[in-house]
Amino acid sequence: MAEIKPRTLSGFMDLPPQKQTQLDRFMDTLEKIYSRYGFIKIDTPIIESSDILLAKGGGETEKQIYRFTKGDNDLALRFDLTVPLAKYAALHYPELTFPFRRLQIGKVYRGERPQRGRYREFYQADIDIVGDGALSIYNDAEMPSVIYRAFTELGLTKFAIHINNRKLLTGFYELLGLSDRAADIMRSVDKIYKIGEDKLRAILADDLKLSEKDTDKLIRFTTAKGTNAEILSSIGEYCGKGSETYDTGFDELKTVTELLESFGVPEQYVQIDLAISRGLDYYTGTVYETFMTDYPEIGSICSGGRYDNLAGYYTDKKLPGVGVSIGVTRLFFVLDDRSLLCDYTEPPADALIIPMTDDMSYSVKLSTALRDAGVRTQIYFEKKKFKAKISYASKLKIPFAIFLGEDETANNTVSIKNLDTGIQTEVPFDNASAFILNELGKRKIPKLIAEK
Amino acid sequence: MAEIKPRTLSGFMDLPPQKQTQLDRFMDTLEKIYSRYGFIKIDTPIIESSDILLAKGGGETEKQIYRFTKGDNDLALRFDLTVPLAKYAALHYPELTFPFRRLQIGKVYRGERPQRGRYREFYQADIDIVGDGALSIYNDAEMPSVIYRAFTELGLTKFAIHINNRKLLTGFYELLGLSDRAADIMRSVDKIYKIGEDKLRAILADDLKLSEKDTDKLIRFTTAKGTNAEILSSIGEYCGKGSETYDTGFDELKTVTELLESFGVPEQYVQIDLAISRGLDYYTGTVYETFMTDYPEIGSICSGGRYDNLAGYYTDKKLPGVGVSIGVTRLFFVLDDRSLLCDYTEPPADALIIPMTDDMSYSVKLSTALRDAGVRTQIYFEKKKFKAKISYASKLKIPFAIFLGEDETANNTVSIKNLDTGIQTEVPFDNASAFILNELGKRKIPKLIAEK
Repeated sequence: MAEIKPRTLSGFMDLPPQKQTQLDRFMDTLEKIYSRYGFIKIDTPIIESSDILLAKGGGETEKQIYRFTKGDNDLALRFDLTVPLAKYAALHYPELTFPFRRLQIGKVYRGERPQRGRYREFYQADIDIVGDGALSIYNDAEMPSVIYRAFTELGLTKFAIHINNRKLLTGFYELLGLSDRAADIMRSVDKIYKIGEDKLRAILADDLKLSEKDTDKLIRFTTAKGTNAEILSSIGEYCGKGSETYDTGFDELKTVTELLESFGVPEQYVQIDLAISRGLDYYTGTVYETFMTDYPEIGSICSGGRYDNLAGYYTDKKLPGVGVSIGVTRLFFVLDDRSLLCDYTEPPADALIIPMTDDMSYSVKLSTALRDAGVRTQIYFEKKKFKAKISYASKLKIPFAIFLGEDETANNTVSIKNLDTGIQTEVPFDNASAFILNELGKRKIPKLIAEK
Repeated sequence: MAEIKPRTLSGFMDLPPQKQTQLDRFMDTLEKIYSRYGFIKIDTPIIESSDILLAKGGGETEKQIYRFTKGDNDLALRFDLTVPLAKYAALHYPELTFPFRRLQIGKVYRGERPQRGRYREFYQADIDIVGDGALSIYNDAEMPSVIYRAFTELGLTKFAIHINNRKLLTGFYELLGLSDRAADIMRSVDKIYKIGEDKLRAILADDLKLSEKDTDKLIRFTTAKGTNAEILSSIGEYCGKGSETYDTGFDELKTVTELLESFGVPEQYVQIDLAISRGLDYYTGTVYETFMTDYPEIGSICSGGRYDNLAGYYTDKKLPGVGVSIGVTRLFFVLDDRSLLCDYTEPPADALIIPMTDDMSYSVKLSTALRDAGVRTQIYFEKKKFKAKISYASKLKIPFAIFLGEDETANNTVSIKNLDTGIQTEVPFDNASAFILNELGKRKIPKLIAEK
């Protein structure tokens, strides 16, 4: 008698095999593209000492963290991959070669209030380029290219990477004489898409006490439209007006956008957006957010930016960097929820051998030959009716069934049935793997994301 | 000023990039071979409700488990991948197709006393074939073939998979009239390699009160030597003597060993070993242990067996199965510790572009062309001396450096230096990726494990 009802905790994910295959394909695709750019995969513990993870402190994080004691140790589960990177870079500094291009895809934990599509255990996929003392702005220019290729390879076509530069914003407030209210202004302006221009105007005027003239200037600046070159040209008027910070930010933003074509990124995929700033304090230059153009309500699906000092809590070395992160589990949920994943799922095997004799040795020999040739092969060993065996193959969408009866054994042949077309072919034993690999090579596998 | 000393918890692993590459290659190889046999990858939460994980109870497990509360929830970290499989199979039963061939590689947690080479967070790599109600013995015959191929692909040649059958042992004790002491005898016999024949004889005689005749019979049975066929022939004398359990066990062991050749496994890699039984209670038939022949002190590096009922705590469905598990982190540590890993580590990129002009666009264009062709490419953007740039490539063992100066830009060529041979070649821009891919194709990459 079963005693306990099997269940998965709320906020945790436990996918049936075919869905899992899709999530794995999502992450494998990201890893493949990141690797093309020479990022190096690392792995860090899921459990760290609480003082390490909470070095930066911070209210929300601390409330959401999974923290517990084991023996004398005050432990916690990582809540992002950035703090572990900071620890890793500081700890392994002597063993690393800088700029250190790190790739990490792993689970992180946040005890959020459970909501539909919000997970407490979820995958993040992060890339960062960390310099030793300094890091060229060209690395910031490379990031949109990685994001563009990753999403394109996944099958997404309707998205836009929004970029901005916090030095440009800080410099602009400086030029307006508003440096004392810089942080508040930045945070308010970042909300323009959510609250609209009128509400923003009210906040700037009423709460932040900006003059009408400054408010106008700020709104005009923030909502500049056009091609990237046109926007740069229109905001170029503030260059050389006394804010070095502005001039640097402008140059950085220009550098980041003007190499897009060389990076193979069509301009419509990367837009200067002078409203965004990313909330997190540690961003200091370029910032990125990525939106699905048909689904703006989803919010940013890939965000990040430039920071001056990654690991200041752990080392006196100055480690500036630039990086982006994808919340994989949430994005996967959102795509699935909107039926934006293609129907195709990779089957667990290319071929299913169905023995039709009591002696298994001929079937087993064939499985060995196929597997050695790289054909992913199962043998159906169970004593079941023929129909059940075929049903097994079709449920798992295995493309080829191979029947081995007394005739095949005597003739040293194999009968291969393409379960999609229903066509059955008898080929010599030694040709079986080549036949199947050739057929598999003809398949057109659709991309993971299928937009409507 | 850095405030906190970066550190990794005792018993947790945090590898520098090149070592991490080796560990990843280890797991990727296992996954590749398992996939050849049609196993399906699943993923389960690291955190489960404590009552789910502790359904079976049990002293050691309960002491070692990481358990904590979050809000009202009594939570725990998984300590193996078998209990999560049981929960998964029971929970997702309607969505699964049986026999369910599951593959899972993931981290598990045990709060063991820290010792050299013992980890509290470590990877396990498990495969299991789970039947619905029944499962053919031929699946047991397939397992040694998977293990053989996995270790061979990793580069291990000096190992032996020991197999036995618990029905055979139980039946044998029955024939001797010793069923009342079956569990104790099995546990004692299993220690023969550790304690030696004399000590075992003493335990059997003194502690378990076996007659001299029975002790002799048992020792002779346990230590039967020869080829698998010879051992089967010698213990065949007990068949048909009144123990159905024995006869079944004998037939199963015979089936498992006689298909080895068809499975492509040379006989020396699979040995009947009538001493082993695996401690865990739930094994009921075939059992496996795998030893490195030059390093017996390491103990079994891949173990498992047949069980009658996987998920009895969670469902009334009878789910028999057979599986094996590799303790990846520990085995990796042991191999590394004995210098049995090859020196080669996969570099993070195939090519490093070194721009020699201030304008980056030609370099960036080349990176785009190379990446699109599948060449893993980095661009060295930093302002450093030439020597530092070359040193970056050689530290990371990137095989090709590509110099792009004014001449190359003007001629639409690229200068590619093979950093192993020192040979530099100038090729047209459009031929660069083909040139590099061709050179990469010539490399002979050694296997991960290099025995001495």
